Amino acid sequence: MNETHQQFMREAIRLSIKNIDEDGGPFGAVIVKNGKIIATGTNRVTVNNDPTAHAEIMAIRAAAKELNTFDLSECSIYTSCEPCPMCLAAIYWARIDKIFYGNTKLDAKNIGFDDSFIYGELALPAEKRSIKTTQLIHDEAIAAFKKWNQFEKKTKY
Amino acid sequence: MNETHQQFMREAIRLSIKNIDEDGGPFGAVIVKNGKIIATGTNRVTVNNDPTAHAEIMAIRAAAKELNTFDLSECSIYTSCEPCPMCLAAIYWARIDKIFYGNTKLDAKNIGFDDSFIYGELALPAEKRSIKTTQLIHDEAIAAFKKWNQFEKKTKY
Repeated sequence: MNETHQQFMREAIRLSIKNIDEDGGPFGAVIVKNGKIIATGTNRVTVNNDPTAHAEIMAIRAAAKELNTFDLSECSIYTSCEPCPMCLAAIYWARIDKIFYGNTKLDAKNIGFDDSFIYGELALPAEKRSIKTTQLIHDEAIAAFKKWNQFEKKTKY
Repeated sequence: MNETHQQFMREAIRLSIKNIDEDGGPFGAVIVKNGKIIATGTNRVTVNNDPTAHAEIMAIRAAAKELNTFDLSECSIYTSCEPCPMCLAAIYWARIDKIFYGNTKLDAKNIGFDDSFIYGELALPAEKRSIKTTQLIHDEAIAAFKKWNQFEKKTKY
């Protein structure tokens, strides 16, 4: 069993190394269901001009497309580096069961990818964060939620 | 100036309401640069089978594509609801300057979108989170970061 886990992680690592040669960042991820890799991803932020194109996000999108559902329950993700808060939250939204990682957040920080700053910001109340955050016209915004509550055909998730 | 902020928020709200009729969730966002809307997004999770397709993520991807860069400095985001941790972290990665929101996280929780659970999980150390997280073969994974450090043509971000 451990051997299998290591094999999946080795594939994530292989992708992370290969991605450097393909103009991406040094990150790779694979998503596994029922003992098989169903999707892979690498960091394509600078190549695709997409700030959200981290390896885990790319793998989640690909896996959801592959399975034709937004629900990745019973899937595991093997990522070459501990997920940043964006990717970790995406893993929760996708309902992935287990996370395996290789490098740590500290390793990432040491090569210039500082997730820890963002983890710190998320833990602060909005008024203490470095990005100024302002609430506007709540009385108008709530109309969407009232409509959603009354909407019978909605797909819950 | 306040009037302008409200107008941009009204557009995000309008999109959030319209999106319900288009089979999406009740969330909309617009991204503004130099006083103009450059991109919009709505929640398309269930329609696109993409767990990452929140309104803010969709708007960030569209804005980065529009501006042909992964760096959205000098942009503001107007979102009909306070961002979830995935979207908030994406806003940091995209270097967006300011956040304006309408509905609160609590409003979202009240209609079944519980970001607060994920905020809580992110603030915990990995071993206390509900998703089991395991480190594997760090000695092999670090090879990618060593290669990245020595790689001269890399695009930093």
